[in-house]
Amino acid sequence: MTAPESAPPSALQPQTVADAGEHRVIELVRSLVPPTPSWVQIGIGDDAAVIEPERNRLEVVTTDVLIEGVHFDRAFCDPASIGHKALAVNLSDLAAMGAAPRAALLSLGLPGSLPFADLEVMLRALVELATLHKVTLIGGNVARSPGPLFLDVTLTGTVKRRRVLTRRGGRVGDALYVTGSLGAAAAGLTWLRRKADEAGCAACASPVWSTEGTSDVVRDAVERFLRPQPRMRVGMIAGRTRAATACMDLSDGLADAVRQLAAASGTGAVVEAEALPIHPGAAEIFSGESKQSEQAVPVQAAVSAALSGGEDYELLLAVSRRSLRRFLAVQRLSGVPATRIGTLTAGTELVLRRDGVDEPLPAGFEHFA
Amino acid sequence: MTAPESAPPSALQPQTVADAGEHRVIELVRSLVPPTPSWVQIGIGDDAAVIEPERNRLEVVTTDVLIEGVHFDRAFCDPASIGHKALAVNLSDLAAMGAAPRAALLSLGLPGSLPFADLEVMLRALVELATLHKVTLIGGNVARSPGPLFLDVTLTGTVKRRRVLTRRGGRVGDALYVTGSLGAAAAGLTWLRRKADEAGCAACASPVWSTEGTSDVVRDAVERFLRPQPRMRVGMIAGRTRAATACMDLSDGLADAVRQLAAASGTGAVVEAEALPIHPGAAEIFSGESKQSEQAVPVQAAVSAALSGGEDYELLLAVSRRSLRRFLAVQRLSGVPATRIGTLTAGTELVLRRDGVDEPLPAGFEHFA
Repeated sequence: MTAPESAPPSALQPQTVADAGEHRVIELVRSLVPPTPSWVQIGIGDDAAVIEPERNRLEVVTTDVLIEGVHFDRAFCDPASIGHKALAVNLSDLAAMGAAPRAALLSLGLPGSLPFADLEVMLRALVELATLHKVTLIGGNVARSPGPLFLDVTLTGTVKRRRVLTRRGGRVGDALYVTGSLGAAAAGLTWLRRKADEAGCAACASPVWSTEGTSDVVRDAVERFLRPQPRMRVGMIAGRTRAATACMDLSDGLADAVRQLAAASGTGAVVEAEALPIHPGAAEIFSGESKQSEQAVPVQAAVSAALSGGEDYELLLAVSRRSLRRFLAVQRLSGVPATRIGTLTAGTELVLRRDGVDEPLPAGFEHFA
Repeated sequence: MTAPESAPPSALQPQTVADAGEHRVIELVRSLVPPTPSWVQIGIGDDAAVIEPERNRLEVVTTDVLIEGVHFDRAFCDPASIGHKALAVNLSDLAAMGAAPRAALLSLGLPGSLPFADLEVMLRALVELATLHKVTLIGGNVARSPGPLFLDVTLTGTVKRRRVLTRRGGRVGDALYVTGSLGAAAAGLTWLRRKADEAGCAACASPVWSTEGTSDVVRDAVERFLRPQPRMRVGMIAGRTRAATACMDLSDGLADAVRQLAAASGTGAVVEAEALPIHPGAAEIFSGESKQSEQAVPVQAAVSAALSGGEDYELLLAVSRRSLRRFLAVQRLSGVPATRIGTLTAGTELVLRRDGVDEPLPAGFEHFA
C-alpha cells in the first residue's frame, strides 16, 4: 500500500503549537539545525548536551530573553524578526567581551495558540543567524506559556586568555567611542507603533507593515529595531589587538552603558551631546512624531532616544591614547565606523555636555518603569 | 552627621520588584552569591561571564524553566520551594548524564508586582541548593514579565570522556531500574490543590498550607513536589563505574522516560505495573481523592500518577546483566535504593504488564494538553 499522494496540508502540518505538542516542536527544531561539528558529542534530544571545550581558551557565557509585550509585539514584529533578535541580543553580549560565539541553547515559552507556521519561521530565522555566526544550537527546552511568548537564549563563546574585553578596564583620560549610529531602534519602534495605531489593530494577528514608500533611512531604522546586527567583528578584533581598555554593548541605551562602564572602571565620564552619531532615520521619524515645525524638538527626541532608548546593540569602547592607532585599524578591518562621543574622567561624576553646558547624564532604559 | 539609627524598613527595602528596579534586583543576586572559585574569571555584572573550562573533561549543558501557572502556583508553592525547584530540575538533568554540576545562569522573568521579599526568599533557596551541590551562579538576566513569573536556569557540568550516561546506550535484555519511589510529586500537587480549593482562595497572595497534622508520608509527598532532591550521586557513580548502559530522568513521568530511552536505544520495553515502587503517600492522598471504599481505585490512581504524572525527578536506568553487581554497588554507595521495574525488549513495542495482561504503555505528561 502506498501513501496517498496529496494528503490535505492540515493533516501534515499542525495549526498551532498546542496541536503539535512538545515532541513535534522539538522535532521541528532538530530538523532545522544543520549537521553539528565534531566537538558536539551529544546535541539536541538527550537530558543535556555534551560538548568538547575548545583548547586553550576561556569560555564566555551569557543569557538574554525576549518577552512578548516587553521586548516585542506580535502586532508589529514579524516572526522572523523575533527569532533573529532572540539570538542577536546574545551575540551582542559576546561581541562586547571580544569573544567568538560557539554554542547556543534555546528555551522556548510558547502560548498554545501560537501558529505552528509562525514558530517555524521564527526558528528558521534564528538558525540562519546562528549559521552566519558559526553558532551551533546544541539544546534547549520547550514549555507552554500561559502568558506571553518568550525566547530565552543562552550563548557560549570562547576568547583567548588576556584578550577579554570587560567593563572595568577603563582609565581616566580614555576616549569613549561608539560604533555605528544611535537612536535607530527606538525610532524604528516608534514608527512601527505609530503604524499599528493608525491601522487601529494593535491586537491583530501578525500584521507586518511594509516600509515601502518610506525613505531609505526610515526603512533602515525600522530594520535596526527588528533585526539588529551585532558588532561581532569590532568586538573580536578590538579584543584580539587590545585596542580597547573596556567595552560594553548598548542594550539599555548609551547613558546606561556609560554609567556602568564608568562605575566598573572607577571613573567618571563626560558625554558630548553634539558628537552623538544620531541615525538619520531617527531625526526623520521623531520629526513626524512631534508634528512641530521647530527643528530642535525632533533632534532633542533623537538625542534622548540615543541616550535612553536602548536596543541599538552598538558597542561602547574605552580607548587609551596609546592604543588609538590600533583602534583606527579595528574600524578599518571591521568595516564599522566608530565615533568619539566623550571621555572617562577623574571622580565619579557623569556629565552630558550640551552646547557647552554640563548637565547630569540622564538615566538609561529602566526595565521595570 | 550620622545616619538615623532606625529608618523605617520601607525606606530600606522596596516593597515590589517594580519599586526595586532591575539594578537593585541584580544587586540582590550579587549579595546572595558566595565568593566565587578561582575558575570564575568574571562573574555576575559584566556583559557575559568568563570561566576557565575544567581540564580533561567534557562539558554538559542543560536548560529548564519553571513557569508560574504551569509548573508552580504561588497560591500553594512558597517562594523558597520555587527557587529550590528551579535549580533542582536542572540538576536532575545533569544527574541523568552522570555529570558533576559546576556553573549556573539564572534568567528571571519578574512581574513588577512580585514582592521583593518573596524574590529574596526564592533566590536564597536557589543559592542554598547551589552551594550544597557546589554550583556557582556566574550570571543571568533580569527582565520584566507582563504575565507569569518565570525562572529559567542554564546549568553546566563536567564529565570524564567515555563516562557520559546517555539515553541511547540501552540493549535488548537490559533491566530497567528506577531510583526511589514514584507518584509522590503528582500526589503532593493533588494534596496542595485540594487544600487550596478547600480554603477557597486559589488566588490569595502566597498562602502556604501547613502539613502539620497529616501523616509523615503525605508530608513527604508534598515535600517531593515542592522541593525535589535530584539524584546526583546515583547519576555520577553510575556514570563513573559504567554501571548503567543508559539513563534518563523522570521529569515527565516514567512512561515518557521509558518511551524515550527505548526509542533512543532502538529497543522496545516491558514495564511491570506491580513492580512500581509507589510512594506510600501517593496511595494515601489518592484514596482521599477518590472517596470510594474500594482499594483498587487509589492504587490505580497512584500507578497512573507514577506513569504519567511527572515531576518525580527520579532516574530511570538501563542495566545490563554483566554490570548488575556494579549497579548494586551504586545503590549502596549513593544510599538511594533502586527497583527493577521492567526490561528492554527486541522490537519497538512498549508494554505495560498488569496482572499478567499486556496493554500499551500510556503516554507521559503532555505539556500542551
